[in-house]
Amino acid sequence: MGVNIDGARLWQSLMDLAKIGATDKGGVRRITLTEVDRQGRDQFVRWCEDAGMSIAVDGIGNIFARRAGTDPDAAPVAVGSHLDSQPSGGRFDGAYGVMAGLELVRALNDAGARTRAPIEVIAWTNEEGSRFVPTMMGSGVYAGVYALEYALQQKDVDGISVREALEKVGYAGPAQPHRLGAYFEAHIEQGPVLEETGNTIGVVLGALGQRWFDVRISGQDSHAGPTPMETRKDALLAASRLVLEVNRIATTFPDYARGTVGFMQVKPNSRNVVPGEVRMTVDLRNAKDATLAAMVDELKNSAAAIAAQGRVAVELDEVVYFPPSEFAPDLVARVREGAQVLGYPHRDIVSGAAHDAVYMARIAPTAMVFVPCEGGISHNEIENARPQDIEAGCKVLLHAVLGRAGIVESAQMAA
Amino acid sequence: MGVNIDGARLWQSLMDLAKIGATDKGGVRRITLTEVDRQGRDQFVRWCEDAGMSIAVDGIGNIFARRAGTDPDAAPVAVGSHLDSQPSGGRFDGAYGVMAGLELVRALNDAGARTRAPIEVIAWTNEEGSRFVPTMMGSGVYAGVYALEYALQQKDVDGISVREALEKVGYAGPAQPHRLGAYFEAHIEQGPVLEETGNTIGVVLGALGQRWFDVRISGQDSHAGPTPMETRKDALLAASRLVLEVNRIATTFPDYARGTVGFMQVKPNSRNVVPGEVRMTVDLRNAKDATLAAMVDELKNSAAAIAAQGRVAVELDEVVYFPPSEFAPDLVARVREGAQVLGYPHRDIVSGAAHDAVYMARIAPTAMVFVPCEGGISHNEIENARPQDIEAGCKVLLHAVLGRAGIVESAQMAA
Repeated sequence: MGVNIDGARLWQSLMDLAKIGATDKGGVRRITLTEVDRQGRDQFVRWCEDAGMSIAVDGIGNIFARRAGTDPDAAPVAVGSHLDSQPSGGRFDGAYGVMAGLELVRALNDAGARTRAPIEVIAWTNEEGSRFVPTMMGSGVYAGVYALEYALQQKDVDGISVREALEKVGYAGPAQPHRLGAYFEAHIEQGPVLEETGNTIGVVLGALGQRWFDVRISGQDSHAGPTPMETRKDALLAASRLVLEVNRIATTFPDYARGTVGFMQVKPNSRNVVPGEVRMTVDLRNAKDATLAAMVDELKNSAAAIAAQGRVAVELDEVVYFPPSEFAPDLVARVREGAQVLGYPHRDIVSGAAHDAVYMARIAPTAMVFVPCEGGISHNEIENARPQDIEAGCKVLLHAVLGRAGIVESAQMAA
Repeated sequence: MGVNIDGARLWQSLMDLAKIGATDKGGVRRITLTEVDRQGRDQFVRWCEDAGMSIAVDGIGNIFARRAGTDPDAAPVAVGSHLDSQPSGGRFDGAYGVMAGLELVRALNDAGARTRAPIEVIAWTNEEGSRFVPTMMGSGVYAGVYALEYALQQKDVDGISVREALEKVGYAGPAQPHRLGAYFEAHIEQGPVLEETGNTIGVVLGALGQRWFDVRISGQDSHAGPTPMETRKDALLAASRLVLEVNRIATTFPDYARGTVGFMQVKPNSRNVVPGEVRMTVDLRNAKDATLAAMVDELKNSAAAIAAQGRVAVELDEVVYFPPSEFAPDLVARVREGAQVLGYPHRDIVSGAAHDAVYMARIAPTAMVFVPCEGGISHNEIENARPQDIEAGCKVLLHAVLGRAGIVESAQMAA
C-alpha cells in the first residue's frame, strides 16, 4: 500500500483557499486577523477536522492540527506555514506550506497509514507583518523570541491591538507550547534561482542573516554652474560610491553574500544644485554570521574612505540585526534524499528571505522545501507556480516527514 | 579732476533698494512684474532722473537710463543687470549690477566729466524666471533670442500673462531696440572661487555652455533577499555608476568642465527591494562648445556601457542646450587692466551660471566683472557681500566703461 500525494486535490485546496480574499487580479488579500483571515482559518480547521485531526489554538492564535501517532511519548513532527497574505499578495506564499501539510495527512488517511510520531499541521499567525509588526509574530512567540504579552499589545494603524483582533476573530486559544520533534516548511522560492537553473526542488540549507543600516550623507548644497568640481561636497556622488561599494562587497564575499541599496532620498533634489544631503539604506545578507560581520566591517571602512574622499560626513546607523539560521543537517539530508529518490531536479539553496522556519530552527530541528515560482515574483497578485511543482514539493515533504515520523503500517511511499 | 566712486553711496543705494521687498531674514523677495518690483523700478527711475538721465522703456519692460555723450553718432556704452529677485533671494544678485551703473553715472556727474559715447544703465526684465519662464526674458527679447510677442504671452501659475503684468505695473513702453557699443555687467560671483582664492575681482572670460539631460533607467524590481547578485537588474546600481561617470567626465575634460547629477528618484524606493527604475538628471557645462560636445559623446558611451553591464535600459533625453558664450577679448582686457591699475587681487574666471550678459554677448561686445560673495552662496536670503568688494567691482567697472566710452573732459579716474 502506497501513500499517494494527490496533486490535483492539493491544487484544488489551494485554489479553494484562494477564493477567500480573492482579488480582481487573481491574487489574495487576506490580512492577518481580519474577517477574511478568520474565514481562511475556519476553512482550514474544517478541512483538518474532516481529516480526523484534533485542533488546538494557542494564545497568539497559532493553529495546531494533530494526527495522532502510535507512540504516545513521541514528539510530533510538524509541517506548517501561514495563511495570512500581503495586502496585494499571491495564492501560494504561506498557503502552500499549510495546504501541503493537509494533503500529506489526507494521503496518509487514504493509505490507512499510521506514523509512530504524531503529525501536526501548523498555521502560524501574522507571518507577513503587514498589519501588525513584528513579522513572523506567531512563530516568534512560539519560539520564545517575543513574549506573548508584548505581541498581544501591538496595534495596527487604527489602534486595534493584536489581543482585540484575536478575540474578534475567535482565535485566542488556551494551548501552551509543546515540544516539537521536527519542523518542516514547504514554500515557494520567492526568487528566480530554481526557475533559471531548471530545478524543481530547492533543498534549503538555512536562511541568510540580515543587517540593515540607515545611512545619512551630509555635504553642502551649491550651484551646479558656478561651483568648480574640486570645491564640491557632493552628497549624491558619495552616496553613489557607497552603492558601488555595497555591490562590490556583496559580489566578492563568499557564503551567499547579498547587498542592496533599495532606498535613496536626495536633497534638495533640484537639477542644477549639487546635492547637500542623501539618506539611503543598506541591506547586507549572508549565510554565515562571521562573514556577515566582515561585510559590515568592510562597509564601515568604505564609508569612512568615501567620507574622506568626498569631504562629506557619512553616518551609518544599524537598525536590524537578524542572525543567519542553519537548518538541521539530517533533516536537510532527508529533503535532498526525497528529491533524489523521486527523481526531481534539485539544488541546494539558501533562503534569502526569512520564514517561520527561521524561528522554529531555534527550538526544533528544521528544514524547508522550496519550489519554483514564476519569474521569481511574490508579494504580488501575479505570483504564480506550476501544479506539477506544487505536487513535487509536497511529495518531497512527505518523504522527509515520514522518514522522521516513522511509518508503522506496511504502507510505502508512492514514487 | 578725478572721477571718484563713492563706495558708501553705492552701498547705501543697495541697502535702500533692498528695503523694497525686504524679508525677515535679511533677504529680498522682489518677484518680476509684481507691485514690489514696480516699486523697485520706480525707485531706480527716480534716482536716474535725479542724476539727469533720460528714461526709455521697451516693449518687454526693459528700462534704459541714458546719460548723454558728446558724440551724437556714438553707440551707447551700456552697464546693467536686473532688479527682480528669486522668491527667497538676496540683496546683491542683479541689484548690484544696476546700482553700480547708477553710481558710475553719479561719480561722473560729481566730477563734471563728459564721455564721448553715451552711458546707458539698463535694468532687464525678468532675469530670474521664477514667475515667468524663460529666464533672462528681457535681455533675451532685446538680443532677438525670443520674439517679443512670444515673451508677452507667457503666463504665471495664476494665468496672468507677461503682457497683463507689464501693463499693470506700467512698464510696457514704446522704445525700440537700438545699437549698443558695448555692454558691461557687474555681478556677485555666486560661487566660491574668488573668496577661496583670496581675489577681489573676477575677470570673466565668458559663460559656460550647458547641456541638460533627463535620464530614465529601467531594470527590474526584485526582492533583496532571495535574488542573487548575478541575476539582478538593479536600476540604482546603474544610476550610481552613471553618477560616477558624470563626475569622471567633468573632472577629466578641460575648459572648465562641470557635471552634476542634482536630481534622482528611485522606484519603488523600499529598503528590501532591488530598485527597478531610476529617474535622474545630468547637467554638463563647459566653456567650449566642442569640448562640451565631446563630454556629451562620452556620457552617451558611458550610458551604453552601463546599460550593457547592468542589463538595464538607459535612456538619455536632452532637454536644454545653451551654447557657451565668449566675451569680447578687448573688453575683458579692459576689466583685467582696471583690476591691475587699481591694485586689486584678481583672476580670470568663467561664469558657471548664465546672466543677461550672455544674451547681450550675441549682439554687442560684452564683458563682466565678478566680486566675491560670502561662502559662494546666492539665491538665498543669507546672500552677502563685503562693502569693500562691492566698491572695488564698481571702480573696475568704471575703468573699463570709461576706457570704452572715452573721457572728453580732463577728468582722471581716481585710484
